[in-house]
Amino acid sequence: MKTRIGIMGYGNLGRGVEAAIHQNEDLELVAVFTRRDPGSLAIHTPGVPVLSADKALSMRDQIDVMILCGGSATDLPQQTPAFANVFNVVDSYDTHARIPNHFQACDKASKAAGKISLISCGWDPGMFSLARTYASAVLPQGMHETFWGRGVSQGHSDAIRRLEGVQDARQYTVPIQAAVDRVRRGEQPVLSARDKHLRECYVVAKPGADKARIEEEIKTMPYYFDEYDTTVTFITQEELDRDHAGMPHGGTVLRSGVTGLNGEHKHTIEYSLTLDSNPEFTGSVLAACARAVHRLNRNGMSGCMTILDVPPAALSPMSGEELRAHLL
Amino acid sequence: MKTRIGIMGYGNLGRGVEAAIHQNEDLELVAVFTRRDPGSLAIHTPGVPVLSADKALSMRDQIDVMILCGGSATDLPQQTPAFANVFNVVDSYDTHARIPNHFQACDKASKAAGKISLISCGWDPGMFSLARTYASAVLPQGMHETFWGRGVSQGHSDAIRRLEGVQDARQYTVPIQAAVDRVRRGEQPVLSARDKHLRECYVVAKPGADKARIEEEIKTMPYYFDEYDTTVTFITQEELDRDHAGMPHGGTVLRSGVTGLNGEHKHTIEYSLTLDSNPEFTGSVLAACARAVHRLNRNGMSGCMTILDVPPAALSPMSGEELRAHLL
Repeated sequence: MKTRIGIMGYGNLGRGVEAAIHQNEDLELVAVFTRRDPGSLAIHTPGVPVLSADKALSMRDQIDVMILCGGSATDLPQQTPAFANVFNVVDSYDTHARIPNHFQACDKASKAAGKISLISCGWDPGMFSLARTYASAVLPQGMHETFWGRGVSQGHSDAIRRLEGVQDARQYTVPIQAAVDRVRRGEQPVLSARDKHLRECYVVAKPGADKARIEEEIKTMPYYFDEYDTTVTFITQEELDRDHAGMPHGGTVLRSGVTGLNGEHKHTIEYSLTLDSNPEFTGSVLAACARAVHRLNRNGMSGCMTILDVPPAALSPMSGEELRAHLL
Repeated sequence: MKTRIGIMGYGNLGRGVEAAIHQNEDLELVAVFTRRDPGSLAIHTPGVPVLSADKALSMRDQIDVMILCGGSATDLPQQTPAFANVFNVVDSYDTHARIPNHFQACDKASKAAGKISLISCGWDPGMFSLARTYASAVLPQGMHETFWGRGVSQGHSDAIRRLEGVQDARQYTVPIQAAVDRVRRGEQPVLSARDKHLRECYVVAKPGADKARIEEEIKTMPYYFDEYDTTVTFITQEELDRDHAGMPHGGTVLRSGVTGLNGEHKHTIEYSLTLDSNPEFTGSVLAACARAVHRLNRNGMSGCMTILDVPPAALSPMSGEELRAHLL
């Protein structure tokens, strides 16, 4: 039985989910929903309709799982609970501090509907959360650190673009290798934000803009940059388009810990992602999550969950027998 | 509520489980069982009895989970189904080819008892199985390789010790870095056993033994060594005891895959373990698994499962709220 999927929102992430569905024979795209004019969108799956977002409810019987591909700032806090009232839903909500609220709102809606909402799935939160949870469970006496990058941070790039005199910008988050190595060696160091990551900014200034002022405003921007060592490099729009068009990302979760009656043996667990395309990888995770949600709901589960509540086997297209034979 | 644990078998692995229980406040060691003379064992947990294996059944009401710490060759195929008839059980059965049979035998016994048997938990099978399953689910178009080491293989060391003229031996499995790098770069190479691992043997010959013959017998030993590049170094017992007393191990699961409508973006997922003590780390995994089994059985589940069937959250001492706040 195929899992019939709806995509809500067709930006980079929605396109990533669409491409992921093409890679999985047991997943089927039923419709793409948008708040834009549906006629303005050309999608990449022949024969699949693009519909106005307000048509979604009428498709409730044709869709097993709705994947919500909006942004965490304003879209998902509204959309996920609203759709969870009707559909099994999956989202990649990543505002860590507000996940408890989001969880509660979705749990209430999903339980009322007898459906599942699987929230905050991607790679962080998502695959990195899994790495942290497994590593903490099997090495309870230890510490972990998460390093992000080298990769493009959309949020930091946007923050630079909002400054006066900035035409375009791309910000790379860069892990500091010396810090990674210290954790890897099991030193269990205390690391500040500045110790862990650099911020590399490539900025296109508008003609006549005051570059010294822009650089100063970036480097002193609270929360985004002031706690980090930040480099600012001014380039042309042509250079930015040529050299910085991709959306690579990734990073590493490292846990070091000790075992033995006297903590005499060191161990290191390391989980790393190197991603050419952040939105396509996130879309792939969401697609696997949609499969799991459909299965778990068919097995009678309902309510809100995160990937930490999902049996790994449920994410795989393989049967239990196949998994034990080939991947165990 | 604590999880009350029995340990069956007190070799390296049993001692590793005991040390792991000390690191987890919600786990409690109730008894150690042995087929040796119980009076001959001194364990490291004050006040906990060492009992004859045949006393285990009389402790059924005091033990929530029995962790079976015997060997995969002869102990576990008998012990796990037998105890699964009475207890929740956890084992680290690692004879890959026979896992389907073992699963069936345990499933029947556990279902009859209304208990859970969680089999084949350790790091491979175990943590590495998780890495393979997650990575395959989120990057379906790709390939994965598992590299083991650098670490001591007990089975290969034993195989050398059985040869005539050998007094003692230690075998290290060593991943070949060039192969690791090719997979990491996403080349998706076809690798033979010889391409992936070297076998380093440190051998203590008995006085007067024919070293050339021993070396030849090692290098041509079917299955264990003949498909690998193998080095044999003769050393003294003193050197072996001094330089090769530890039981380090570890390795890496690497998956490379592509996303996008035309597979245009590469991604790499890497999971690595660097372990000072193979049995203590395995014991730590088994301890976390015991927690999960106790919880899942209290929630009404029964039958045989592997770690691929266990929701990650069940392995952690944290509540769902704590996990979402701190590790998600």
